[in-house]
Amino acid sequence: MLVLSSPSGAGKSTIAREILGRDAALTMSVSATTRSPRPGEVDGKDYFFLALPTFEHMVAEGQLLEHATVFDNRYGTPRERVEAPLAGGRDVLFDVDWQGTQQLKQNARADLVSIFILPPSHGELERRLHTRAQDSDEVVRRRMAKAAGEMSHWAEYDYVIVNRLVDESVTAVQSILAAERLRRDRQTGLHDFVGAICGR
Amino acid sequence: MLVLSSPSGAGKSTIAREILGRDAALTMSVSATTRSPRPGEVDGKDYFFLALPTFEHMVAEGQLLEHATVFDNRYGTPRERVEAPLAGGRDVLFDVDWQGTQQLKQNARADLVSIFILPPSHGELERRLHTRAQDSDEVVRRRMAKAAGEMSHWAEYDYVIVNRLVDESVTAVQSILAAERLRRDRQTGLHDFVGAICGR
Repeated sequence: MLVLSSPSGAGKSTIAREILGRDAALTMSVSATTRSPRPGEVDGKDYFFLALPTFEHMVAEGQLLEHATVFDNRYGTPRERVEAPLAGGRDVLFDVDWQGTQQLKQNARADLVSIFILPPSHGELERRLHTRAQDSDEVVRRRMAKAAGEMSHWAEYDYVIVNRLVDESVTAVQSILAAERLRRDRQTGLHDFVGAICGR
Repeated sequence: MLVLSSPSGAGKSTIAREILGRDAALTMSVSATTRSPRPGEVDGKDYFFLALPTFEHMVAEGQLLEHATVFDNRYGTPRERVEAPLAGGRDVLFDVDWQGTQQLKQNARADLVSIFILPPSHGELERRLHTRAQDSDEVVRRRMAKAAGEMSHWAEYDYVIVNRLVDESVTAVQSILAAERLRRDRQTGLHDFVGAICGR
């Protein structure tokens, strides 16, 4: 389980998309949400779009590994959509905020790897939050306040990447993935392998 | 501090040389030894070649971060040759066995990163131990026994790499280095950096 968190406007979505395109062993966790689909969004690919009662039923039944309310909409991670790929030997990428990360650690696996992505500067963050033409000033102000709140949790993450150049950030996440897969305690079968090398 | 350990014949020296050539921020720890220089070996580059009394004086004075006896020769890591590059912001690579790794953890820094390199198979290890023409059968047998003894300590390391292809193993070590440098607790100045982004 690999978690990417960042304030909105730090470039996380672009990084996640690039990583997924380059790493066949990695699959994206698809969240459930109660918000309406935006133009072009596909149910089951971008999100599972659920009615509020369905979402609340899943919460009550413990079928969500984490869930949160953002701007009056509910978001959550369906448990079965995570456990199936993990059982099949794949790694799963999560795009959740700091609260989601805490819940995933508690409800899923304590050995998840968490990465916090920071924007390169205050000015760049401001610029990126303004570039979505459809956003009102009020929305941008709320986003900036939310970004500062989210960033206050950077110290709860295993790794921190400052996103100066997307290519460098993608390489950085790939290095973290490669390294974590080489950790002794994540490799199964090493005991038998060493035995075979020693001729036992 | 990055430690590479492996049984003799696993290809560790080749990997270390490649990494050092590619990573300017990494410097090799030069060991002190009481054995005689082999043809071509340079004092202060390959080893510090010391007389036994000098070596024993350094042990008594606590000037060695680790030391060991291998095939009747003494080997050790001079403390000042490690602390100077670390203080200058460089990383230091160590080629020591499992006992050296334990001593480095105790005498230097608990946050050192340790990698164990395994040969790809029993046959390949045997082949590599035989390819040095100047070695007698007795030396090869002792090496194979020593290799098995060294390999029994693989589970004390943070990472394990099976050296199938040198290029892949070098990339693996580079990924580990890159990832460890991105660990939140190894990056200094993040607190102030985040404050600046938030406009504080």
